[in-house]
Amino acid sequence: MGERVSSAPVRIGVIGAGAMGGSHARMLTRWVPAAGVALVHDFDAASAARVAAEVGAESVGSAKELIDAVDAVVITSPDPTHEELALACVAAGRPVLCEKPLAVDVDGAARVVAAEEATGRALVQVGFMRRYDPAYVAMRAAVLAGRVGRPLVVHCVHRNAVAHPSVTSDGIVSNSMIHELDCVPWLLDDPITAITVASPRAEGLRDPQVALLETAGGTLVTVEVFVNAGYGYDVRCEVVGAAGTVRLTPPYGLAARTEGGDGLLVSADFVARFADAYRTELAGWVEGLQRGVVDGPTARDGYRAAVVAACGVESLHTGARVEVPQT
Amino acid sequence: MGERVSSAPVRIGVIGAGAMGGSHARMLTRWVPAAGVALVHDFDAASAARVAAEVGAESVGSAKELIDAVDAVVITSPDPTHEELALACVAAGRPVLCEKPLAVDVDGAARVVAAEEATGRALVQVGFMRRYDPAYVAMRAAVLAGRVGRPLVVHCVHRNAVAHPSVTSDGIVSNSMIHELDCVPWLLDDPITAITVASPRAEGLRDPQVALLETAGGTLVTVEVFVNAGYGYDVRCEVVGAAGTVRLTPPYGLAARTEGGDGLLVSADFVARFADAYRTELAGWVEGLQRGVVDGPTARDGYRAAVVAACGVESLHTGARVEVPQT
Amino acid sequence: MGERVSSAPVRIGVIGAGAMGGSHARMLTRWVPAAGVALVHDFDAASAARVAAEVGAESVGSAKELIDAVDAVVITSPDPTHEELALACVAAGRPVLCEKPLAVDVDGAARVVAAEEATGRALVQVGFMRRYDPAYVAMRAAVLAGRVGRPLVVHCVHRNAVAHPSVTSDGIVSNSMIHELDCVPWLLDDPITAITVASPRAEGLRDPQVALLETAGGTLVTVEVFVNAGYGYDVRCEVVGAAGTVRLTPPYGLAARTEGGDGLLVSADFVARFADAYRTELAGWVEGLQRGVVDGPTARDGYRAAVVAACGVESLHTGARVEVPQT
Amino acid sequence: MGERVSSAPVRIGVIGAGAMGGSHARMLTRWVPAAGVALVHDFDAASAARVAAEVGAESVGSAKELIDAVDAVVITSPDPTHEELALACVAAGRPVLCEKPLAVDVDGAARVVAAEEATGRALVQVGFMRRYDPAYVAMRAAVLAGRVGRPLVVHCVHRNAVAHPSVTSDGIVSNSMIHELDCVPWLLDDPITAITVASPRAEGLRDPQVALLETAGGTLVTVEVFVNAGYGYDVRCEVVGAAGTVRLTPPYGLAARTEGGDGLLVSADFVARFADAYRTELAGWVEGLQRGVVDGPTARDGYRAAVVAACGVESLHTGARVEVPQT
Repeated sequence: MGERVSSAPVRIGVIGAGAMGGSHARMLTRWVPAAGVALVHDFDAASAARVAAEVGAESVGSAKELIDAVDAVVITSPDPTHEELALACVAAGRPVLCEKPLAVDVDGAARVVAAEEATGRALVQVGFMRRYDPAYVAMRAAVLAGRVGRPLVVHCVHRNAVAHPSVTSDGIVSNSMIHELDCVPWLLDDPITAITVASPRAEGLRDPQVALLETAGGTLVTVEVFVNAGYGYDVRCEVVGAAGTVRLTPPYGLAARTEGGDGLLVSADFVARFADAYRTELAGWVEGLQRGVVDGPTARDGYRAAVVAACGVESLHTGARVEVPQT
Repeated sequence: MGERVSSAPVRIGVIGAGAMGGSHARMLTRWVPAAGVALVHDFDAASAARVAAEVGAESVGSAKELIDAVDAVVITSPDPTHEELALACVAAGRPVLCEKPLAVDVDGAARVVAAEEATGRALVQVGFMRRYDPAYVAMRAAVLAGRVGRPLVVHCVHRNAVAHPSVTSDGIVSNSMIHELDCVPWLLDDPITAITVASPRAEGLRDPQVALLETAGGTLVTVEVFVNAGYGYDVRCEVVGAAGTVRLTPPYGLAARTEGGDGLLVSADFVARFADAYRTELAGWVEGLQRGVVDGPTARDGYRAAVVAACGVESLHTGARVEVPQT
Repeated sequence: MGERVSSAPVRIGVIGAGAMGGSHARMLTRWVPAAGVALVHDFDAASAARVAAEVGAESVGSAKELIDAVDAVVITSPDPTHEELALACVAAGRPVLCEKPLAVDVDGAARVVAAEEATGRALVQVGFMRRYDPAYVAMRAAVLAGRVGRPLVVHCVHRNAVAHPSVTSDGIVSNSMIHELDCVPWLLDDPITAITVASPRAEGLRDPQVALLETAGGTLVTVEVFVNAGYGYDVRCEVVGAAGTVRLTPPYGLAARTEGGDGLLVSADFVARFADAYRTELAGWVEGLQRGVVDGPTARDGYRAAVVAACGVESLHTGARVEVPQT
Repeated sequence: MGERVSSAPVRIGVIGAGAMGGSHARMLTRWVPAAGVALVHDFDAASAARVAAEVGAESVGSAKELIDAVDAVVITSPDPTHEELALACVAAGRPVLCEKPLAVDVDGAARVVAAEEATGRALVQVGFMRRYDPAYVAMRAAVLAGRVGRPLVVHCVHRNAVAHPSVTSDGIVSNSMIHELDCVPWLLDDPITAITVASPRAEGLRDPQVALLETAGGTLVTVEVFVNAGYGYDVRCEVVGAAGTVRLTPPYGLAARTEGGDGLLVSADFVARFADAYRTELAGWVEGLQRGVVDGPTARDGYRAAVVAACGVESLHTGARVEVPQT
């Protein structure tokens, strides 16, 4: 398990040199011996050059050039480019870790799945990093081992301090809630069969949103997503079973007693909160590459989450419960 | 505020000498100087005699006799008797604190409201004791003072260790969830306008249940009620607003570190959990009596909660969202 | 247990109409049916009149007059008057609940004990209200039942937001830490045999102070008292035994998530924190009176705590460990 | 910061192939790109071969051979061998990360310091991994930035589930409490000047132990070390300052509600609890090597902790406060 493969490190190319791309490049460089970042591309050449310099890589002027020259690709570019880049990786036979979402709509995600399946190889992993968070992993193990008995209800809360001004009501489902839409079925080993999404009455952005999910096994799931919660980043989950409940505890860190209060200092964003998960995700992906497998969330997982998200957006617009086609 | 009224204590009669009746009788006797339990009635004369002896009261053979002989009445008898007894108190002009539910159905509750209104006097208080819990009171004050900004979402959890074998799926709405159906509108000062109730797929009793409430002001409320949660009694509430959230903390008591765990010792039932609320409720009711007012939840509050509960039962049966008539 | 004694309520006189005297008078009036506040005295006649009016009592011009006219006395006057007033109550054969400290020094406390013992009656109770706090009571029951095995170490923290300007370094031991000096032996059923007190190096007031107590049974106890902790009132206690630990949980109330934090709202002072304990203390004392016993902390308990406090003050001055004479 | 040095990875030799040696070898291999484990030695050749095979290294028959053949050495062999091995590394000019303690006594630690200083180079780092724990690092930053005002009191708790049968009363100071003896001065940037150690009266092993530390700056520190606490591994720390307090929160993970309780699942040992700290420690050490510096705890830090521990052992035997010579 701890064995360093004697062969040369996997040469990785990173497409998209923004905050997430830079973070992934640094994580790979500092913490993943089996990988080396060789090339970086961004439509903004200066960003690519800066990140490349940070990690001892080179920058290249086109995604195609990068894909052809490396062993595997990390896609951290803007969402609308994901599908095209993933398809290009698949066409070139390059393993790819694509940040979520896999595509901006269900059809796009389906095209990536179809293209990958046509190759007969497992090439695509989607960046649902919660599956690598140690506490989520422990929670899943506890649930699947029957520690809480049959899962009956799950409660999820997912809050950001402040959303990017470009956020849309639909995007809250397809870009934020999509984490829960992927990780709840994984947690329970049970697919989502229906979704209802509502939001408090408001002008403008429909935020927060409250979803009720139903699974094939009959479990009910509440999800609150609130992208402008103000006070900080906060992700919670409790699984309520016939024999007890299990839940994530607050992140490890500091608590302070000052001025009439006694409490935790909440992390500001998901990068700090899920740093361990991102590191383990990247290492797990690279280790999978070396064994020729995709261990993490697959393109089909990304497609399934997109299908549920599309149903969620429909529900948000109509107010009605939407049954989710099983794929 | 602390003034002891010089006049003789209010002479109280308790109808129903079971666990709740005994507890109320002892609370009044030990903690409420302004009141004295004079008479106790129960269809089981031995129970009535036992509770009467405990508190220095006398037992009587009929509810009517009791109602005629006292200044005010506490109804803690079985639910199907509430309406008739409340009507008898109203007819006799006796102030009455009636344990919830006010009646077993909406029409019954409406009859009590109508009878009371016909007298032109405020006579009926319903035993929604959460309105007296110090933390709920503080939470309401914080919310109404704008401490969390506009309330957007509320999350409620309400769990019992083990339900009485006689519990029914409808009864979980009308007897357990009814606490939330009363206290959420009170907490937000905002009535419920729609309710959707679902439960995990199961044979037999539909437990737990998950409800989604909508208020006139546009707030969304999730409620989980689980009457066979197994591990203990547990009531939680968080109000999520535009400017932060506020929530009840766990009850004060002991925590232990033993055998791989570190945690709270959960109270077994609502009597222990809400002892302070019951005491304050009884004292507040008696003080209201002395001033000739009903300070606490009124018959109309009991009626409104019954209306929402009836809609909830309908939703539980049909799976559909039910709009709540405003009354 | 809940029985209301049929005889007339105990007529109580309150000496000292400051914050604590007013609070006790209101508590007795609102919550203790078996008692009635009949008379109030204060060297400031206006204060006495104000409190008396609040509770429907009368004010009197001298303590002696009050003591002669009532069934039992509550002493809440300034500390230097406690001994003389307690002795006057004993001389008059009046049961008395004396706020801590029983006297300003050990000799004074000894004189009260001697005077009481000379009467052959149990007359004096000292206001160590923590013994009535529900969580302390539950902790003691757990410890004495062997739930954590043999108690090995106890950790106590006792913090005030801001001390009165008149506080002295010695007074921190004899007026604040005295709560722990009384309640630890009660908690463990094991007397204190040695004390060492130290404080961080500072100009002026020696605050906070850290004490190490040793008990006859060989348990070690750390105590931090910090009377200017700034952020609020905070009392904590953990008993560490051979088979696990048990500790007080934070007081029940509200928690808020706002501006980067997630935590409890800390109570500002001991009146709010120990309101239940004060109420139960007063009721327990009155019920004891009616049975002719002193159920709570006795004059000898007050004397023992004073002895330990005197040793603590000596240790604070010398820096050395001081053995506590067993009395 | 994230830059991968282009030169070949540092070739590391691990001496001592027990649990800690195996863990360090695997950590280096899996998570530290800049390092490679080249050789492993253990007096038990089979253990060395097993760990070597796990990480793609070779095993060698003598420590001397290993030291001569690698770029840098990790010492995880039994405590009595640390001094001799560290001296051998220093003599060979090899950077070395030596697990605590640096030597079994003060004189041994002094010899290592002297030998290193004679070379004029920084070669020795001691394995006080808490300095790398993210929450300890954040706590130190908060304290040194003045967030709690002047530090007045620190409370430390350090508990193991079950100690190795070979543990001794002195060893609890010199092997367990030594973590606090190193990390408190680091946390406060303030050396320890006196120590008093006591333990509950008991036959046999003196466990738990309670220490009172004093710093040059006048801060008081309580430390409880309990190596047979039974329920799990538990490390806590609170710094109490003039303007508030800051404390470590419980490790991130799962909490469960089952059978009357609601709480955290406590980690069983320090390997799980401090996994992140060990990883960061090893990476930080290797990065220091590449820059030719010792960034972490030095031999002198190890020596200072040994001096305080020796004073602590003396205090444990005599019961008296022992002043710590400043070195």
